[in-house]
Amino acid sequence: MKTYDWRLAPNPRRVRMFLAEKGLDVPLEEVGTEACGSSPSSSRASTPYATAPTLELDDGTCISEAMAICRYFEDLHPEPRLMGRYAKDKAVVEMWERRAYEGPMFAITEMLRNTHAAFVQRGLPGIAEPIEQVAGVVERGRGRLRRFSASSDKQLGKSRFMAGDAFSVADITAFCALDFLARLLETPVAPEHVHLRRWFGEVAKRPSVPASA
Amino acid sequence: MKTYDWRLAPNPRRVRMFLAEKGLDVPLEEVGTEACGSSPSSSRASTPYATAPTLELDDGTCISEAMAICRYFEDLHPEPRLMGRYAKDKAVVEMWERRAYEGPMFAITEMLRNTHAAFVQRGLPGIAEPIEQVAGVVERGRGRLRRFSASSDKQLGKSRFMAGDAFSVADITAFCALDFLARLLETPVAPEHVHLRRWFGEVAKRPSVPASA
Repeated sequence: MKTYDWRLAPNPRRVRMFLAEKGLDVPLEEVGTEACGSSPSSSRASTPYATAPTLELDDGTCISEAMAICRYFEDLHPEPRLMGRYAKDKAVVEMWERRAYEGPMFAITEMLRNTHAAFVQRGLPGIAEPIEQVAGVVERGRGRLRRFSASSDKQLGKSRFMAGDAFSVADITAFCALDFLARLLETPVAPEHVHLRRWFGEVAKRPSVPASA
Repeated sequence: MKTYDWRLAPNPRRVRMFLAEKGLDVPLEEVGTEACGSSPSSSRASTPYATAPTLELDDGTCISEAMAICRYFEDLHPEPRLMGRYAKDKAVVEMWERRAYEGPMFAITEMLRNTHAAFVQRGLPGIAEPIEQVAGVVERGRGRLRRFSASSDKQLGKSRFMAGDAFSVADITAFCALDFLARLLETPVAPEHVHLRRWFGEVAKRPSVPASA
């Protein structure tokens, strides 16, 4: 078993942080430096979009999509729970995880991949075919970030973590995206979002953060 | 308990089809006709993006995001399993569901919302703020559809359903998107994708299809 990884990118970091929170050690193979996250030819055949992260099981099954990989380990190693325990909190975790993904994580794709010279013809992740950059979505990405920041700030005024009192994979997705925005796109959490800033500082102190950095 | 619904849209249909497959009956409140899917003011306060579908529980908790709603019912009513039974098939289902969502379901958003007059300043779902249309992403949407069609056609040459031998929520997301593309955007499954066409015809015969139409 191993995971094809891209150290620099925010999306694969979600899996590393998840594994660190679970205390699991899965071999990583860095593939990102080859061509902005494309996988090596061995895995390219089995993963149609050739994206990192991809988990390759011992029977050859390849699982791509960060949350699908996390789901696999949540099922095999349930504790500590990172995807909820009961029906309602499972749903609330999934709701906030998807909001974080379509909020700041998509914002990164829209803001970075559609302008930066390293991503010419790579406007979306994957290497199946050239994908033109569309500069018009950069502002859309900023809007995604703005809306998520406002709604999660409101939520974090009521609860310790994104999906309630327990740390979850929703915090992992949100943190990995917001940390990347702060460090590499010079877009830190805005000062007026005091609850989001409180949460960000608290999550940043978890051992899984340097372990996955 | 009730679900805020938008009958015409492909995304809320996923929840209706999921409930029909489970044999569950949840009251629906149609909100889509008001303003292209915006929720009424009662639910708007509790759902920051005011999107349909949103599940309102009897304790007032509002769950948005179609897959979060499905996760809730999968946990309470596990049979028939629509999100996998064991670790590996749970992961494979989630991988294909997310691919279907970011493939043809996103393609609809990109192709329809960024050109149609009904969606001026509504380039993404939700009513939190005006979102400009970006015509440049229409071609991007077509590419998402093309790549998903090619990769799922290959997959369906090997298995009966998207994620293996069992019907799952991955089939629901893919079907709801591809059926909308065929019927309302005049973009049917391409003739060369023979396996995808075989699958589409087979899923179309399930009782949950007319029940959710």
